[in-house]
Amino acid sequence: MTKANRNATPRLDEHPGEGAVRGTQRMEIFADAVFAIAFTLPLLEIKLPEAGPGFGAALLDLWPSYLAYILSVLVIGIYWAHHHFSGAIYRTTGHHFLLATLLFLSLIAFIAFPTRAFAERLSDPQTRETGAIFYVCALAALSATWLLKWKTGCKTNDVDDRLDANYVRRLTRKYEVTTGLLLLAAAIAFLRWEAGLALAAVVTLANLRAPETPRYIEEAPAIEGDT
Amino acid sequence: MTKANRNATPRLDEHPGEGAVRGTQRMEIFADAVFAIAFTLPLLEIKLPEAGPGFGAALLDLWPSYLAYILSVLVIGIYWAHHHFSGAIYRTTGHHFLLATLLFLSLIAFIAFPTRAFAERLSDPQTRETGAIFYVCALAALSATWLLKWKTGCKTNDVDDRLDANYVRRLTRKYEVTTGLLLLAAAIAFLRWEAGLALAAVVTLANLRAPETPRYIEEAPAIEGDT
Amino acid sequence: MTKANRNATPRLDEHPGEGAVRGTQRMEIFADAVFAIAFTLPLLEIKLPEAGPGFGAALLDLWPSYLAYILSVLVIGIYWAHHHFSGAIYRTTGHHFLLATLLFLSLIAFIAFPTRAFAERLSDPQTRETGAIFYVCALAALSATWLLKWKTGCKTNDVDDRLDANYVRRLTRKYEVTTGLLLLAAAIAFLRWEAGLALAAVVTLANLRAPETPRYIEEAPAIEGDT
Amino acid sequence: MTKANRNATPRLDEHPGEGAVRGTQRMEIFADAVFAIAFTLPLLEIKLPEAGPGFGAALLDLWPSYLAYILSVLVIGIYWAHHHFSGAIYRTTGHHFLLATLLFLSLIAFIAFPTRAFAERLSDPQTRETGAIFYVCALAALSATWLLKWKTGCKTNDVDDRLDANYVRRLTRKYEVTTGLLLLAAAIAFLRWEAGLALAAVVTLANLRAPETPRYIEEAPAIEGDT
Repeated sequence: MTKANRNATPRLDEHPGEGAVRGTQRMEIFADAVFAIAFTLPLLEIKLPEAGPGFGAALLDLWPSYLAYILSVLVIGIYWAHHHFSGAIYRTTGHHFLLATLLFLSLIAFIAFPTRAFAERLSDPQTRETGAIFYVCALAALSATWLLKWKTGCKTNDVDDRLDANYVRRLTRKYEVTTGLLLLAAAIAFLRWEAGLALAAVVTLANLRAPETPRYIEEAPAIEGDT
Repeated sequence: MTKANRNATPRLDEHPGEGAVRGTQRMEIFADAVFAIAFTLPLLEIKLPEAGPGFGAALLDLWPSYLAYILSVLVIGIYWAHHHFSGAIYRTTGHHFLLATLLFLSLIAFIAFPTRAFAERLSDPQTRETGAIFYVCALAALSATWLLKWKTGCKTNDVDDRLDANYVRRLTRKYEVTTGLLLLAAAIAFLRWEAGLALAAVVTLANLRAPETPRYIEEAPAIEGDT
Repeated sequence: MTKANRNATPRLDEHPGEGAVRGTQRMEIFADAVFAIAFTLPLLEIKLPEAGPGFGAALLDLWPSYLAYILSVLVIGIYWAHHHFSGAIYRTTGHHFLLATLLFLSLIAFIAFPTRAFAERLSDPQTRETGAIFYVCALAALSATWLLKWKTGCKTNDVDDRLDANYVRRLTRKYEVTTGLLLLAAAIAFLRWEAGLALAAVVTLANLRAPETPRYIEEAPAIEGDT
Repeated sequence: MTKANRNATPRLDEHPGEGAVRGTQRMEIFADAVFAIAFTLPLLEIKLPEAGPGFGAALLDLWPSYLAYILSVLVIGIYWAHHHFSGAIYRTTGHHFLLATLLFLSLIAFIAFPTRAFAERLSDPQTRETGAIFYVCALAALSATWLLKWKTGCKTNDVDDRLDANYVRRLTRKYEVTTGLLLLAAAIAFLRWEAGLALAAVVTLANLRAPETPRYIEEAPAIEGDT
């Protein structure tokens, strides 16, 4: 191997601490691929009706499947947009942060199932309560793993340390409130599923809003000015 | 973290406005993954015939499934080629542009279903009209979300502002005409499905042609010449 | 947008000719994703036997499914390794080269189906001839689209023009011979399927060998020395 | 093509030896995509129960499917974290290293099947022994292909040659011990499946720990100091 190649690609291996700390690019590619598959797979669950005179009506009768697809795509899409956003806030990936990310992603891949349990069984009065409780609980669990991932990233210093501490605090608070409200929604769903579902819907849709633009420590460059 | 690492990867976080504006790379990776999955999944819907003396004939009888696969691959492939092309025209991704992209991608993932409703039911005289109408409407909706994505990108300044304004206008016009003709095709399909389908086919295949080479503002480099 | 960002990422938009010519990275990511999905999906076709005393024997009886998986993975893996290799030989991607790549990738995604038609029906004497013919024809068609992609890339100057002309000629020759032999195998398969299959197997396995290391024009850097 | 573009992206084509040796980025993207698909696909095997009064109980009765999902995600997740880690240890990818990687990835994609054979048949006393043996054997085979990949990478000099030799030796030893113990677990499973399974579980979970931080030859930069 030539000297030029040896030095060509700088690595982040020098970090002490937990195993090997690296940049975020490969973690993002893996996460984006999981998001993309979770986003696309629910389509496979929509079954084409048989040919015949009732074909048009049968296509319309598939509305619970369409609804399941729309809900899956909406929730996964919102999380992806925020994951995309936080990709620039994280700076490195240590082993424990990777494990927390994997836990979060396993729920992203799973969410399509409770979504179907809710949407595809919504038209059956005996079944829809159970489906709705399952769905709201799954949304709360997903939010909790997102919060866990964020807290792990903060604790292991994988979050960009040039960020303004108040900004990081506001973000932590926002994620905590979201998870707290969704856990509350899950508890309410056991009592009155419509109320629990409504709260979960409001909290989830609130995340359609753009996240706050990151703020950085203004003085940092000045302090490091001697380099 | 060392100073070198802190400064290693520049980010686009400085943009004011809607949340966090970033470069296009991660959005493109996610979009390419969704395209790739949508491109490949339709194969799973081709069911292998049982063994026996009629195996060869049964393989040939699968032609509606092969046709559905070819049509899916063709439409998704054409959109991918144009998305690949426009990847170099966009410069940044804001939150609202991401949401518009997610809407477009959810239809890319969905298009395989109406394609099958059309192609796999084409041999049944009672069913094919409904399947064709559904398919042409889905093509029109897909085109409309592409246009929406483009207009959102223009409005939020995610489109490269060094592009020649006339070039951007011609592109906008082209997308508007395509969507308009497909909406017309959908309307016609309700009256005479063969005519609507034929118009949709012509408009779609017209996009096999290469897009116009981007044109940039000639004077810009001169103005910025002092850098 | 700041000046720094405007100039940050250089684009290849300046190329005249067919639409927008770009670097190969995004095409490679899309292609790699299609390869990865085509590589992984065949597993879904292996159906878990029911519980009961014959479970062990039922798992062994699945050998045609395992064989189909192994053959899919082998053929797609070999093509991926060569596509990975040629990724460094291509330099740019024009619109027509993208279309040829999409045609090739649609066959990469499709190949799992004829593979199953052959492997999963191999134990049935009445069916295996048809399955084998279908499989060998599909291998020939796949090789033909690979050759088409390569020839398109050469014709549209998407192949790195710093490569030694003799090296490019040897590569073209190799792809032509492979496709020719596979077309011959397909023809033979209609007469004697075992012979056609054996020839196709030998030609395919020959591609497990490493491709020749690329050779570049020695004088080129000297000519460009003044930069 | 302009001179600037010609020289823009440096390639690693100059390496002599087996075919074309390249950087690791594209191999990592392909591998990450296979990991992501293998990670996400098992969800498709969880079948939604029918609507009706027993819906809640039916959802709980799916625990073997949930267990299969959790086990798949756990094993694939652990391997991904280590593959992510070793991505910075490898420096280049030659043809034979690519083939060894493909073999490893084909088992990553396959592992979901023996996982289901174990977890989804665990409640049946007549079946679970067979399922457990199959699962432990598959874990041992997966570990063996990981070891093979690592040894191939070492042999073909694709591992970063700036790494401390003792560090590389410790890693090799660790992979050998893991594979040895899993092969032992597979042998034990044939005698007493509970014991074999327990050993395999302990060995697998031990890999949840962070890998050792890479160590580099201290003197190397000094020797190359004149550059």
